[in-house]
Parts: sequence; C-alpha cells; structure tokens
Amino acid sequence: MLTVVIFGAGNLASHLYTAFASSQDVEVIQVYNRSVSNLQFFENKVPTTTSLKEILPADVYLISVSDDAIQEVISSISSFDGIIAHTSGSVPLSNLAKRNAVFYPLQTFSKTQEVDFSTIPICIESEHKEDLKTLFQLGKTISSKVFQISTAQRKTLHLAAVFACNFTNQLYRIAEEICEKENIPFETLHALILETARKATKDSPKNVQTGPAKRGDQKTINTHLSQLDSSDLKEIYTLLTKSIQKEHGSKL
Amino acid sequence: MLTVVIFGAGNLASHLYTAFASSQDVEVIQVYNRSVSNLQFFENKVPTTTSLKEILPADVYLISVSDDAIQEVISSISSFDGIIAHTSGSVPLSNLAKRNAVFYPLQTFSKTQEVDFSTIPICIESEHKEDLKTLFQLGKTISSKVFQISTAQRKTLHLAAVFACNFTNQLYRIAEEICEKENIPFETLHALILETARKATKDSPKNVQTGPAKRGDQKTINTHLSQLDSSDLKEIYTLLTKSIQKEHGSKL
Repeated sequence: MLTVVIFGAGNLASHLYTAFASSQDVEVIQVYNRSVSNLQFFENKVPTTTSLKEILPADVYLISVSDDAIQEVISSISSFDGIIAHTSGSVPLSNLAKRNAVFYPLQTFSKTQEVDFSTIPICIESEHKEDLKTLFQLGKTISSKVFQISTAQRKTLHLAAVFACNFTNQLYRIAEEICEKENIPFETLHALILETARKATKDSPKNVQTGPAKRGDQKTINTHLSQLDSSDLKEIYTLLTKSIQKEHGSKL
Repeated sequence: MLTVVIFGAGNLASHLYTAFASSQDVEVIQVYNRSVSNLQFFENKVPTTTSLKEILPADVYLISVSDDAIQEVISSISSFDGIIAHTSGSVPLSNLAKRNAVFYPLQTFSKTQEVDFSTIPICIESEHKEDLKTLFQLGKTISSKVFQISTAQRKTLHLAAVFACNFTNQLYRIAEEICEKENIPFETLHALILETARKATKDSPKNVQTGPAKRGDQKTINTHLSQLDSSDLKEIYTLLTKSIQKEHGSKL
C-alpha cells in the first residue's frame, strides 16, 4: 500500500484525490493547503492541514499547487524522506529535494466535470530507478497509461499540446463562426469533430487525412478562399492547405 | 412505411442500407449500381439491379453515387414520381427531376468501420414542403438530428468542415511530428485530443479555450517559437496564436 500526501486543493488535486480514493493500492493520508478556504472538498474524507509542520510521513508527496508556488513548497519540505513529485507539465524536475520527481497527468481538468483517469496518460520522471518504479506503480493505480518522460520531452509535449488542443480548438471556433454567419447550427459539425478526433487516435493522423488539400482539388480550394471574407481566415486556410500538401506531396 | 431505392454501392450507400435495415419504418426495396462488381455486399439482403429500366417505384430514390455521376443518374430517372435525393455535401440541389432533393449525412465514412448513424446529422433540402416532411421522417428513422439546410448553407458547411476536420487533423499530424522528433509516443496526446473535441461539442469552443495565447503568456509563446525549427510551423504557430488573441481580446 503506497501512502500519499497531496499538496494543493485545486482542480487537479481534488481529481487526483478522488481517483486514488477508489484504489485499493494507495491511500491518501493527508491533504495540505496553504489556506483553509479550498479544503472544504476534502473535509470528512481525509485529514487536512494548513501547517507544513504537521505533514505526515509518506511514500510520495504530490505537489499539485500552482506552477509559481511549486519551488517554494518543495524547498520547505526538501528534507523529507519520501518522493517529492510535482504534477506540472511545464515546470522542470526540481533539484531542491532529496528525491525529486514529476507525476504529471496530461489532460485539461475542470472543477465541475468528472474525470475518468483510466485513459489519461501519467508522465513520470525521476533520476532514481527505484523511485521511477514507485511512481509507475502509483500511476498504474489510476491509469492504464504511464509513460517515463524527461523534462526536455515534457517541454516538447507542452508545445505539441498547444497544436493538438489550443490551436485545434481555435479551428473549431472558426468553423463555428463560419456556421453562425449563415445561421447553421454548429451542432451539425459535432459528429464530424468527434469522429475526426477518434480517427486520429486510432491511426496516425497522416493516414486518415481527407479533403480538398489532400487530393489537390484546386477548384474547391479556390471556391473556399472566395467564400472567406476575412484576410486572416484566408491566410490560415492557405497556410494549412500548404502544410497538408507538403505532407502529402501534392503540388503547391 | 417509406420505401427507398438506393443508387450506388460505395461506402455511404452500404452504411445507409445497414442503417435503414434496422428500422421498422423504412424499407430499402432495391439497390442499383452501374456495374455488378460492388453489389456483392447487398446480395441476399435486398434485390439489386444494374439496369435503370428495372428500377422499382419508391417513395424516395437516394442517389449515393460519386459527385461527378449524380447529374447523369438523376437525368436518367428524372421522370420518376418519387423524391429524388442525392446524398452529397458539395453538389447543389438538382433542377433535373420533378421532386429534387438532398439527403446528406454529414460525416466521414470508411468502408471497414461501423457507423452509429444515431448521432450523425442528416442535412435535408427540397423546394416542396411535403417532400421535406418525408425526408425529415426518413432521416429520423436513422438519426436523432435532422436539419433543413439550403444549398448555400451546405456550401458554407463544407468550408467549415475543412477547418473542423481536415485542418484540425493536420494540427494533430504536426503535434505527432513534434512528438516523434523527441521520441515521445503520440499516444500521450490521445486523451487530450479526445477531451478537446468533446469539450467543444458540449459548449462553444470559444468558452473552453485555454493555453498561452488565451492568457496572453508571451514568455511561453516565445519559448515555443524558439523550440520550433521549421519556419512553416513558426508561421502556423504565430497565425493561430494571433487568431486566438483576437478572439479573446488579449494584446497582439
């Protein structure tokens, strides 16, 4: 049985607590937060504290506070014996503690929505083999996907995620705006959006590309460009069309 | 009970047949295809023919042939009494038949994968109120989402779908390439991709945007740009970041 103390009381901290609570192989023995305000969620579920002096001994300390506060929290408990793992995608492996580590679930979390951790990849990092083993074991209690990812790789993943998540979402927004102008319910595109995402996770996105850019259908491309009245959108259309054509060897 | 004759034997034709076959309120009484080769799928399920002279009387003729062949097929049966509806997203409402119509399921179909029509929007069009009613009824036998969409709207939808599907898929591909360079399994992004798509169909994509562009985090944006070694990718990053910032009123 692994014992865990969670630091922080935000979205990720509470989702992690809930996920661990349903596992037989791990016990969250305490939740720490600087202020008492956000600790309500944990009351009557697990002992809580706002004092760093009261932290219980544990196998793993999960530092799930805001990125800016991570170093400060780690330095204040750096002499502790357990693994001290932060849960951030963009903060490097610390060098402040004895057993620095990362335990980063790669997903967007909102407070109100339930999370199924079982499919969420957990990215772990440590310089110690034994600790990697423990983090792997801890990750496996809530997810089927645990990956060893270095700080450099996490930095790259963060960049890739901007393309796969933020930029993708902006394309959805553009599609929604295009629909709104013609009084078309955006709902007509929902099934397509979900299926496009599903397909890209079942095969390489390269293999499932379709559409006018892929098949070099210049007539349709010209029609689409003439339908767009914003120069920004024309530019995005042209650039992404070129990107697809470069990928698939069509003529530019 | 509505009677239907399907023209064509491709992906969409076979998926439509399968969907209608499980409904009590519609009967596919015949499938026509120019050549016998693709009709195997329908053998022993429904009468087939390769002769336009043998077409049975039906309430609706669904023309599910390639875009280029639609007009030819419609003109050859233009005197028929039923509704003559093509199933294409990019071909205008015909003016060749007596009762021209469109019955367009907005989704990407592959031959090998099963399709759950219940969530796929069916876009219907006709100049006749009674025929719209029939097409609505027909659509409802297989899907919970039937929309009346004009030819002009369908043209706009096709453009919007390029952003929501083809361009989005290219961003997935770029994310995959970024991962590959650092030996990161693309699988680490799967959950994020699916969740981003899911979120955008539960709320407006505008309301669920996150990331450095949205929060005006110029430091992270600069870091990301320095991580990209291709000028094409830098350009796409810059353009989509600007697009998000314009949308959310951050400074450019």
